[in-house]
Amino acid sequence: MRVLGVAPGLTRCGLGVVDGAPGRPLTVTSAGVLRTPADADIGHRLLLIERGIERWLDEYQPGAVVVERLFSRYNVRTVMDTAQASAVAILCAARRGLPVTWHTSSEVKAAVTGSGGAGKAQVGAMVARLLRLDALPKPADAADALALAICHIWRAQALNRLQQAHAAARPAPALARLWKGAIR
Amino acid sequence: MRVLGVAPGLTRCGLGVVDGAPGRPLTVTSAGVLRTPADADIGHRLLLIERGIERWLDEYQPGAVVVERLFSRYNVRTVMDTAQASAVAILCAARRGLPVTWHTSSEVKAAVTGSGGAGKAQVGAMVARLLRLDALPKPADAADALALAICHIWRAQALNRLQQAHAAARPAPALARLWKGAIR
Repeated sequence: MRVLGVAPGLTRCGLGVVDGAPGRPLTVTSAGVLRTPADADIGHRLLLIERGIERWLDEYQPGAVVVERLFSRYNVRTVMDTAQASAVAILCAARRGLPVTWHTSSEVKAAVTGSGGAGKAQVGAMVARLLRLDALPKPADAADALALAICHIWRAQALNRLQQAHAAARPAPALARLWKGAIR
Repeated sequence: MRVLGVAPGLTRCGLGVVDGAPGRPLTVTSAGVLRTPADADIGHRLLLIERGIERWLDEYQPGAVVVERLFSRYNVRTVMDTAQASAVAILCAARRGLPVTWHTSSEVKAAVTGSGGAGKAQVGAMVARLLRLDALPKPADAADALALAICHIWRAQALNRLQQAHAAARPAPALARLWKGAIR
């Protein structure tokens, strides 16, 4: 499973591509940021983000995209900028028919460190360890994007386990048919 | 001057096209809303908005796009939805090299009624009068988009007057040359 994580922003939009599968090691394929000039008009900035994300999707061909969802503790200006950058990422993914999921920062922290209230340093240390990196990529937005991608892969793992548990608990086919027959 | 006004939203995105020029009557060319299903995923909804706006841009070929800018009194969920829909509109305009401007609801009210605190009914009555309509188009988002377009045209008029006033106050060319020479 190859996942593109997007830590959206107009000034810096973090991008990180992670390969992994449930129960197997994670590998970082690429990490970086798209930057747009703060003094450019919003249309030009969104165009730059669109081009950048299209380039990453072309180059890395991820199977899923995961975008950070902001919480209400941010101010409206931040939320607007972030929402606009995330809309472009989601639109680019949707045009290619890629599934898009959202995770909040707390969900990412919980997935990576076990605690939704973990500090930046702790999250960073775990991301570096999980991706077997000597140092975390900079700027922080690139690292955030990698953490998002890890969160997505690990949640898929948890979901898979849940599905397996359900399958194991399900009655055998013959019995299931009988049971379905009984309630008809 | 043909202007497309966009009252952005995910569930209903109001669109209105107004033709007009400084000091001349305004004409409504089209008004309506794009709707996306609330239970669809965000990627699909943004794609629908993109397609709808592209269709309007193709059909009406406006020379400028004006988008409503939200104020901080709204909650984060509303701001996010609106910001994402507006990002798609801005992106579509920017791809065609169209100028995009923003106006808040108060700026629109002030332009149309003379008061930034005017009520919906008063704004609606003025929009209908200015566009010489018997009744305002429904739903309200379509009327909001028309009001935005009017605001843009009228502000352009004010800007033009200002530029003319500046031009009239400017020294004649020969004098200007002399004056520039003097301070060199």
